[in-house]
Amino acid sequence: MADMTTLATARPLALDPDRLLPVEPRTREIARRLYAAVAGLPIISPHGHVPPQWLAEDVAFSDPTSLLVSPDHYVFRLLHARGVALDELGVGGRPLTAAESRRAWHLLAQHWPAFRGTPSRFWMDSVLADVFGVTERLAPESADAIYDRVAEAIAAPDFRPRALMERFGIDILATTDDPVDDLHHHRTLRDDGFRRRVVPTFRPDRYLEPARADFADLMTDLSRASGVDTGTYRGYLAALEERRRFFKANGAVSSDHSHADVVTLTLDENEAARIYDAALRGVVCSGDATAFRRHMLVEMARMSTEDGLVMTLHPGVHRNHHSPTLERFGPDTGHDIPTTVEFTRGLQPLLDRFGTAEGFQLILFTLDETVLSREIAPLAGFYPSVYAGAPWWFLDAPEAVRRFRGAVTETAGFYRTSGFIDDTRAFLSIPARHDMSRRLDSGYLAQLVAEHRLDEDEALETVIDLVSTIPRKAFKL
Amino acid sequence: MADMTTLATARPLALDPDRLLPVEPRTREIARRLYAAVAGLPIISPHGHVPPQWLAEDVAFSDPTSLLVSPDHYVFRLLHARGVALDELGVGGRPLTAAESRRAWHLLAQHWPAFRGTPSRFWMDSVLADVFGVTERLAPESADAIYDRVAEAIAAPDFRPRALMERFGIDILATTDDPVDDLHHHRTLRDDGFRRRVVPTFRPDRYLEPARADFADLMTDLSRASGVDTGTYRGYLAALEERRRFFKANGAVSSDHSHADVVTLTLDENEAARIYDAALRGVVCSGDATAFRRHMLVEMARMSTEDGLVMTLHPGVHRNHHSPTLERFGPDTGHDIPTTVEFTRGLQPLLDRFGTAEGFQLILFTLDETVLSREIAPLAGFYPSVYAGAPWWFLDAPEAVRRFRGAVTETAGFYRTSGFIDDTRAFLSIPARHDMSRRLDSGYLAQLVAEHRLDEDEALETVIDLVSTIPRKAFKL
Amino acid sequence: MADMTTLATARPLALDPDRLLPVEPRTREIARRLYAAVAGLPIISPHGHVPPQWLAEDVAFSDPTSLLVSPDHYVFRLLHARGVALDELGVGGRPLTAAESRRAWHLLAQHWPAFRGTPSRFWMDSVLADVFGVTERLAPESADAIYDRVAEAIAAPDFRPRALMERFGIDILATTDDPVDDLHHHRTLRDDGFRRRVVPTFRPDRYLEPARADFADLMTDLSRASGVDTGTYRGYLAALEERRRFFKANGAVSSDHSHADVVTLTLDENEAARIYDAALRGVVCSGDATAFRRHMLVEMARMSTEDGLVMTLHPGVHRNHHSPTLERFGPDTGHDIPTTVEFTRGLQPLLDRFGTAEGFQLILFTLDETVLSREIAPLAGFYPSVYAGAPWWFLDAPEAVRRFRGAVTETAGFYRTSGFIDDTRAFLSIPARHDMSRRLDSGYLAQLVAEHRLDEDEALETVIDLVSTIPRKAFKL
Repeated sequence: MADMTTLATARPLALDPDRLLPVEPRTREIARRLYAAVAGLPIISPHGHVPPQWLAEDVAFSDPTSLLVSPDHYVFRLLHARGVALDELGVGGRPLTAAESRRAWHLLAQHWPAFRGTPSRFWMDSVLADVFGVTERLAPESADAIYDRVAEAIAAPDFRPRALMERFGIDILATTDDPVDDLHHHRTLRDDGFRRRVVPTFRPDRYLEPARADFADLMTDLSRASGVDTGTYRGYLAALEERRRFFKANGAVSSDHSHADVVTLTLDENEAARIYDAALRGVVCSGDATAFRRHMLVEMARMSTEDGLVMTLHPGVHRNHHSPTLERFGPDTGHDIPTTVEFTRGLQPLLDRFGTAEGFQLILFTLDETVLSREIAPLAGFYPSVYAGAPWWFLDAPEAVRRFRGAVTETAGFYRTSGFIDDTRAFLSIPARHDMSRRLDSGYLAQLVAEHRLDEDEALETVIDLVSTIPRKAFKL
Repeated sequence: MADMTTLATARPLALDPDRLLPVEPRTREIARRLYAAVAGLPIISPHGHVPPQWLAEDVAFSDPTSLLVSPDHYVFRLLHARGVALDELGVGGRPLTAAESRRAWHLLAQHWPAFRGTPSRFWMDSVLADVFGVTERLAPESADAIYDRVAEAIAAPDFRPRALMERFGIDILATTDDPVDDLHHHRTLRDDGFRRRVVPTFRPDRYLEPARADFADLMTDLSRASGVDTGTYRGYLAALEERRRFFKANGAVSSDHSHADVVTLTLDENEAARIYDAALRGVVCSGDATAFRRHMLVEMARMSTEDGLVMTLHPGVHRNHHSPTLERFGPDTGHDIPTTVEFTRGLQPLLDRFGTAEGFQLILFTLDETVLSREIAPLAGFYPSVYAGAPWWFLDAPEAVRRFRGAVTETAGFYRTSGFIDDTRAFLSIPARHDMSRRLDSGYLAQLVAEHRLDEDEALETVIDLVSTIPRKAFKL
Repeated sequence: MADMTTLATARPLALDPDRLLPVEPRTREIARRLYAAVAGLPIISPHGHVPPQWLAEDVAFSDPTSLLVSPDHYVFRLLHARGVALDELGVGGRPLTAAESRRAWHLLAQHWPAFRGTPSRFWMDSVLADVFGVTERLAPESADAIYDRVAEAIAAPDFRPRALMERFGIDILATTDDPVDDLHHHRTLRDDGFRRRVVPTFRPDRYLEPARADFADLMTDLSRASGVDTGTYRGYLAALEERRRFFKANGAVSSDHSHADVVTLTLDENEAARIYDAALRGVVCSGDATAFRRHMLVEMARMSTEDGLVMTLHPGVHRNHHSPTLERFGPDTGHDIPTTVEFTRGLQPLLDRFGTAEGFQLILFTLDETVLSREIAPLAGFYPSVYAGAPWWFLDAPEAVRRFRGAVTETAGFYRTSGFIDDTRAFLSIPARHDMSRRLDSGYLAQLVAEHRLDEDEALETVIDLVSTIPRKAFKL
């Protein structure tokens, strides 16, 4: 390990054991007891974006910046807002040289005050202190020493991805995968006898949007992967069913869907076939394409009732808001911006058909907080199939999580929620993210106890369920 | 009373005197003093759904399930979400046998953890402990003993509806009634000299929606009830005016309206008449029907300015979301789901005409919390006629009530709000619901005092006004 | 000073030094230390509505009512909601006589309980106690004594506007001005060598809305003021550019825009010219007029990138909701009511062109709180040009400010926000409004420290930045 020379201006970094717990002393006492019961429980991560390749190939991470900055859109987007160019951070372009990587780390240190009050600050502090043993706060003066310490650590075998997954106590990790993926990374892990469960997730968005310019090519890919002729609508459905079967056989427990909205409808089969044919020929009109996509969401639900994959919805994002950035750096570069979303009317046709179907499970996520108390909690409070998804993306932060519990619990309770999902590419932050969630739920439940709305034995049982039985039930694990 | 044998695993049920008050000690002290001043004040319930028949006939309740579970959609909808079939709970079908009633009670006990953090938990605990003297928490082990205790209690004369209304200190109870109802239950109560005030509420929704298949039949009913020929639009208006007069003569103080939206407009009389005629003949088009309904909301306001009935709006619900459940169990079976709603533009035509009219009072309720700070509070903070309605339905829960005060008070203060309404069919929970509201308002005001935003003498006066003068003024009681 | 005879029923008015700070003792201790560091810092007021004439002419205020009631729509709108007629308060009509002014003050005192829990209560108490040394709470019994004390005070030279601006420590005060204004008041202040900075703000709304009946007249005015022929679209653009130059030369740092929405688009120049020509002839259709206004918002951004004026948006208000009040009392008489607003899709065309343009700065304000976490914080967390504007109008109140920080900070941090703006005509309340903001930010940061999400040295640096460097950067001061 590099020597952590304490500079005159360096401030200590120490994670307080009570961090994120309620401040009021009696409530904090209760929260401590609740948190103590779940702090060390295994991590279940049923939805996220860690590349399976990392675990399958188990190669060392290359450098601190490409590990902790370049893949983390929470971090680089706020640096971009401060005027830092994305290519200085290794985003969406060629790998950084050693000198560039260190320089990027200095940019992070220089702009570190911009992250005050954000969850990225909490996660990064946790990673630096807990995973790398850093004892100084990130700042221009400490940047080099911290960079060196991280760089040295990740060169060691015990910091390879599989060793970290063991060390982090991650029992189950779900990745997100293209329907035509051959899942060879997942199979490698299985063939290697890796003890931790790494499961794929079926994410077919592109294959359900016939307005895409590459739709016909995608259908060719789908046909090749499935061995089913996608020249007809029926063949297309069969190919999708086949790929879901393949995913399920390779461990998948859910399909994930992220479109602009969650409006659903059912087309007559002839009509669906007509639109599909037009899409293959590249002559589909926009209204038809939208109708088809909405119809296909119902078809996905229908397939779920047959193959048992849990269906998760993550709607309501305007993708790639700034087209010059998209053109230069590609997608997922920090400018996906949320929009309003509507579930009550939109999902009615789907739920009318499958809302009470045996074994069907539908988890609703949102970036539009207004739907939590108004739509999602009431739906999850009636339909046996519907679960209120945990706070996601911009909302997996302390105060947003508290707002989530405040908005959902009074209508749907705790047992109609999904359990925490980290939804992250930032592999090293997974423990810190789950820890944050456990601390916040402990605090929320402690508040209920302190207000005499719940007895402490019940709060204890609930907080344990929230990290164990509840996600297992919601995701059929 | 049945013997409450304490089983090894049974947990005590005890209502803490500080329940729902703020946890921070100095704030709690203030809140205790405020709450003490209102805890015992009479209950004013100016909007709700208790069947007047219960009080008029004053017969004993039949069994614990049909009293506490089957009529309470808060309770049975969450059980349904847990996979319990509605007919097992006595919802929307034939009465349960004694064995079925006990079995349903066991289902409630088994799924009781699902209600943690919900207001139903708070209300049920209050009813069991305060009304029935239960001392054990509901659980599978205690279910039989609690069932027996409740069953025994409700067989006694002092648990009949009228005795309970006296015991609960309910001074005024408003029911919700169809415009053609002859109000004989209300008249029976008056003729019997029952000392407590039970008043009807004029709820004409069905008669204002000409798109309904049964509209012509409804008009026939309206004609019969009013003695006015409804064959013309003018007759229709006169018939509605007559029924409002009849309701008012029988004690009504308000009319209640719950449509999909609160858009308002004024049609030319010829145009209104044309649509009405088409509706009578069953040939009204959807756009016309909607326009007519929106026009009629303004007509209702106009009638209010003439007869003085307070107008209350409860919009923004997608009724009967799951049609298979509707077909099998009927309406009001737990799957009415809120939607977005808009007041600023929608109500402008109505308020432009009547917003400052002498004596006109319009109380706005919402299930869409976003309108509270954005639309309702600003409207109530300018128009002398507009009151911000208390949190309702999914939102009459501790944290939602706090959000309501937080969203409304800073713009409209306390004196432009309606006072609490319980809006419930669950007769036995009325005291617990009003108690919850008093505790929360005490806590909210205590917080203002603790932050030195208000002096305690003012908070004390305000909390008393909130349960006495404020609802009396808003509902003209 | 008038003698403040203490009546038997009069209650003391005393501003607690801890007002608005968190109640929990350890958090309050931290907050006190943070607040102490900013309590006395100079006030920067980069957006507001104080008439520049007051400072330029520096005449004494006439009477308590016309100083503290008639110009403050927060105060008179809630009195109106209580049934007080606007003309009794000196709103929108002739000046009040001395007797009427005193009578209006009594109406305020009589209805003072209506303001409990509102920020107006906090501001007025602060003004009365801090500025005028009042020691009794406003009430019917104390109204005359307080009126007399205020009346006596404002007659003295040290209560003239310039003296107060010095005493209040207002370093910079921005006014809001019409594009054709000759800014002679601002020039008078400069010529007088007044040491405090009073800067104009370019507010061109009327000149960007070609549907207005007076559009051609406005163009004539614009031509006269700019010396540029506005007979063509190109001339119109040049005239606007010229007026922006004039404003900038006279100290302006920003342009302000408040339209019904913030939808943006770019028209082809020929199309823009066609619509402009039609507007000059009074024959523009509504769709074209709206498109032109949306196009002109992008043109304003384009000009900003050239002349460097910061662009601020205050959208989403239904102006003059009650037309009888508009007709009788004019605009800005308390019935502007917020509506929903959308930024993500609406601003996309503007941001696609200028979102990363060098030197461009765009501050987004909202009365629709739902967009804070969903749209504004994500936009400010990516685009270097975008700042999240402080809570405004109905939302510049303690709990709304806390909600703002809770909604924005976790995504955008503190350094992508605008700093406080008071947006007020109520000159005497400016110190109280900034003080409120400083107390609330101190409390919010103290909470982060108490939860171990931030170290106290960082919180201290941040709270100082929030009242100094942050508004200076956002408004280029």
